[in-house]
Formats: sequence, C-alpha cells, structure tokens
Amino acid sequence: MKKIMNQAENYTDDMLKGIYAVHGDMVKCAAGDPRCYCTAKKVPGKVAIVTGGGNGHLPLFLGYVGDGMLDGCGVGGVFQSPSGKQIYNITKEVEAGAGVLYLYGNYTGDIMVFDDAAERCEMDDIETRSIVGADDVNSSGDENVRRGVAGIFFLYKAAGAKARAMGDLDEVLAAAQKAKDNTRTVGFALTPCIIPEKGVANFTLGENEMAMGMGIHGEPGIWNGPIKTADEIAKESCDTILKDMPLEEGSEVALLINGLGSTPLDEQYILANSVMEYLKSKGVMVYRSWVGEYATSMEMAGASITICRVDEELKGWFDEPVHTPFYTQV
Amino acid sequence: MKKIMNQAENYTDDMLKGIYAVHGDMVKCAAGDPRCYCTAKKVPGKVAIVTGGGNGHLPLFLGYVGDGMLDGCGVGGVFQSPSGKQIYNITKEVEAGAGVLYLYGNYTGDIMVFDDAAERCEMDDIETRSIVGADDVNSSGDENVRRGVAGIFFLYKAAGAKARAMGDLDEVLAAAQKAKDNTRTVGFALTPCIIPEKGVANFTLGENEMAMGMGIHGEPGIWNGPIKTADEIAKESCDTILKDMPLEEGSEVALLINGLGSTPLDEQYILANSVMEYLKSKGVMVYRSWVGEYATSMEMAGASITICRVDEELKGWFDEPVHTPFYTQV
Repeated sequence: MKKIMNQAENYTDDMLKGIYAVHGDMVKCAAGDPRCYCTAKKVPGKVAIVTGGGNGHLPLFLGYVGDGMLDGCGVGGVFQSPSGKQIYNITKEVEAGAGVLYLYGNYTGDIMVFDDAAERCEMDDIETRSIVGADDVNSSGDENVRRGVAGIFFLYKAAGAKARAMGDLDEVLAAAQKAKDNTRTVGFALTPCIIPEKGVANFTLGENEMAMGMGIHGEPGIWNGPIKTADEIAKESCDTILKDMPLEEGSEVALLINGLGSTPLDEQYILANSVMEYLKSKGVMVYRSWVGEYATSMEMAGASITICRVDEELKGWFDEPVHTPFYTQV
Repeated sequence: MKKIMNQAENYTDDMLKGIYAVHGDMVKCAAGDPRCYCTAKKVPGKVAIVTGGGNGHLPLFLGYVGDGMLDGCGVGGVFQSPSGKQIYNITKEVEAGAGVLYLYGNYTGDIMVFDDAAERCEMDDIETRSIVGADDVNSSGDENVRRGVAGIFFLYKAAGAKARAMGDLDEVLAAAQKAKDNTRTVGFALTPCIIPEKGVANFTLGENEMAMGMGIHGEPGIWNGPIKTADEIAKESCDTILKDMPLEEGSEVALLINGLGSTPLDEQYILANSVMEYLKSKGVMVYRSWVGEYATSMEMAGASITICRVDEELKGWFDEPVHTPFYTQV
C-alpha cells in the first residue's frame, strides 16, 4: 500500500484537519466534532440540506457543502456510515427555520443513520424530509434498491438551487425528486482501491480487465472482461441508460463524465468525446456537461457516465452559480 | 496498460475533441489546428500570454487558458514539445496590439520551440518576451537549469492578473519574474505513468518505495527508498525549499499542494495539513493555499509542494478572479 499519510487509523481525521486548515473561512464543524462538517454561512429562512456518507469519495460528499448546494455533511470513516448523532448535531447547527432535507446515497447503513437523525429531530420539532440518490442502473433493475453514485451531483445541484431561491421544504424535495427521476449512471472500474486500515485491494482484476457496473466501494458489476475502447464503453453504457430511460430524438440532457480517482483528465475527455458522439448519433443533444472527479473511490481507476434528461426548469437549476471549497461554478 | 481510449496514436487528438466539444463556448483553435488552443475572448490592447508543452499534465498547460490567466497554449503529443509553427499561429491569433509574453517550463525542447516562434513574430513586428518556470529545487542547484513544474501556476496567476489589469508587456513580464523569484517546488513520485504510444511504465519503483525529487516526466530524483509518512515527507520537502529560499519568522507564503494524478484528494489534504503544521512550527504563515491536481503526469501517484513567498503585490495578484474551463477562482 502506497499512501501519503501518517497512521492509517488517522486517515480521515488528518484529512479533515487539512480541509479545515485550508478552508476555514468557508466551513466549520458542529458540536466540536470535525466529522460534523457545516457551511460557515447560515441563511435565515432557507431550507437546509444535509448529506453524509463514508469518506473516500472526495469531493463527494463534503465537497458540495457551500453556497448554492448543501449546508452540512456527516463524515464517516473510509467507506463507513457516519452516525445518527452526527447527522442530528449537524442538523441542529444548520437548520434555519425552514426545515431540513436529507439527501444522500441509497445504502442501507446510511438510511438507518438518517432515519435515526430524523427521529431525534422530530422530538425537537425540526421538520425533515428524506430522499436518496439511486442512479446506478447496473446495480439493480429495481429503482428502489439501486445504489447511489455520481448522479447525486445533479440532485444536489437542483435541490441546492431551489433552496437558494428560498423554496420551501416540499419544493426543495420536489426539485431533488425531479432530478432523481431523470438521472441515470453507468460506471466501470479498471483497478481497485485500498482501504487504508485494511491495506489490501478491495477486489482484483486481471492485467487487461475492466469491470462494467462495479460500484464505488467495489460492489461486483455485471461483467468482468478485457478492456474495451472508449467508443465501445460509451456505446454500451449509453445503451444501458437509454434502455432504462428512453430518450426521444431531440431530447436534451446534462452529462457528467466522472473520474473514479486515478483516471487522468485526458482519458475523461476522450470518454466525453465518445459519449457525445454516440448521443449525437441517437439525436440526443447535450445541453451542458461536466468532466472531472466528482465522486471518486480514492485511487480506483475507471469512470462513470451520468445522463440527466433536462427541461427548462432543470436547466435553470443546473446553471445557477455554486461556490464551495471544492466546486465553483459561475 | 489500462487506459480509457481508442487508438493510442489518437490519444491527444481525441482528448482535444472532447475538450472542444465540452468547452466550445470558451475556447477555440487557431489556424484550423486543434493543437493551437486559444481563448475565445480577445481583449483589445491587453498583453497576450502564451504557454505550451507536452500533453499528459492536465490541467497544465491548456487548462489555464481563460479569463485572468492565459490566452493561448501549444499542445504537443504526450510529453512532446509543440512546434514553433504552432506557437507562432497561436500568437498571431491572440495578440491584441500590446505584445505577447511566452511563459512556459524550462525544458530544452520547449525553449527551442518558443525561440523559433519569437523569431517568426519579429518578422511580423509582433513584440514578444520570454520567461521560463524553473521551480523544481531538487532538479538542480543551478536556477538556470532547474526544471519547471507545478509552481508555474503562480507565474501564470501573477502575469495573468497583471495583464488583465492592462499592464504593459514589461510589467507583465516583471510580474511573472517576481512570482518566479519567490517560488520553489519539491515533488515526489510513488508510482510511474505510462505513455499511451509506448505502453510501458516510464520507470520502476519497488512495492513500498517512493522517489524524492522525481520529475513530472519521470526524470530521476535525488533518492529512492521506503515510503515515508506524510509528516516526514512534509518536513524533508519544506527543509529543502527553506534551505534554497530562507524565510524569516513571520514570512507569509502561498502554498500549492499538487496531486500528480492518482493520488486521492484525501491524501493531498493530509499532506497539506502536515506541511501547514511544519511551516507553522517555523513561524511561516500560509496566506492562501490551493490543494488539488494542478500539474499532473497522467496516472502517476505522488504529489508536489510549492511555496511562494508573498508580499502585498503578489497576494493581490493571487486573489484576483480567474475563469477558465478547468480552473475557476472567485
């Protein structure tokens, strides 16, 4: 294992020290706990949005806390859920009189945690709503059990824009729901990653093998086999998405090409080109696209392709400015 | 070799197709050549700044073309210089009546290329000046032969801010020179990278070995040995820099922690924390810091630490806003 770190057991906390040291003007912690990560800028009367999940996916999750997106994030250990108490403490810190939306990925551990926090909040008369990202098409045919992956970026963007425009709690939830209904992702891995405290790769792949549909924690995908070309990967991934969410000719979409960690930007743009060419051949128009590392698995190689079908309302939300320590859109 | 690509020989051009497809609202090419990369926004009377170098370092070099930084970039093949003709064509496209600054890394091939372009421009009565980034302390004791690495970001930032403020050609050159005089970098690699057309790693390192001082193309460093902790790496790197550029107690610096490609953001922030703690112990104050991938070597693992000693003028330039497809600062 080659990692730039001190003791493996301090990996997440040392990382957080660095983040607070560098971005202390924009973020702070709640209840004296560095893992209760909150924006330093509270807007009275605004719906607050709280997320959370295991560490190891930067800039997901905490990187989207900031103006125009989220208000707080519970940080777990690497690939481990935060606690209900953490989410509750964050909620107490960021709620600003208009209720709180819990928006996170569809994983059993995280659901238990946010449900626990919601119960605690109820006793304090803080209103909460919950919605999970569940965009990973290959993880299940059943939308209710699909895992949440990079597509949550579009849910954050939509809900964040609506909250910033002072929408009420149900409107902010509806914005996230609308983005969710129109978002699908397909991902694939080329290499595994290593959990610092374990010190060994979380799966193995052959010298020239890729894993189509693999999850961001190494959950098994739908096939392992020889690595394909960017054009072939783009076609297969888009076909999978279009089968699940048919798009008529002339449809407009937002596109997110996401690197999983060690895939160079060069390759992400090669993939973006392949995807855009293929969508064009299907008569689908890309309204706006994002290319970069938005949801990683530490040093895993691979990428994901997220497509969100957009209308004027979604386009408006996606075009709103954002400013967080990890993501700025003007 | 596991890369998301089509034919290896099309690696750079397919990447550029993706970049133009995604960012066509902000950039364009000159002379019909995609490798002549220019901003789409020309400001009459502004000094233009042109850079260039081999591909494989995104967001370096082309990623800094945009408002508040650079105007054009010659793109070479992976780790290969662009041509003098390319730089000349870009210069013709972006020059706006106030002369052109050539600002690039200190590599023999690139120097020949920019000198060739400068000669061509002279015949067209376009005034040019040249300056090279040469910040890699471990590459040589002689500042004139030091390689240019991530620290060029601060030169771009200073010169870009001065040009944006409509400084004249000598003032823009002086801004870059001032940043250069105060900037030092130390880098280290944990794994090699693979040039697509070669298909093999550009060097080898043992299972738990790191290479201190290795260059961004795999140029040999000053020692290879067992990987050290983040705190140890921070101390050794800062000591190397401080020996070359002594800083009194109370000095202020800008800090750039740069991931080389496959090093997760988590680890970059762990390193940032170690560096900031160590500088604090030396009485050096960090005015502002940047953490992320600013100058990579494709999928190489490792990082670099850049320190720039700042005064009020440099701080002002570094705080100016920037908006390029790859880097936005508000």
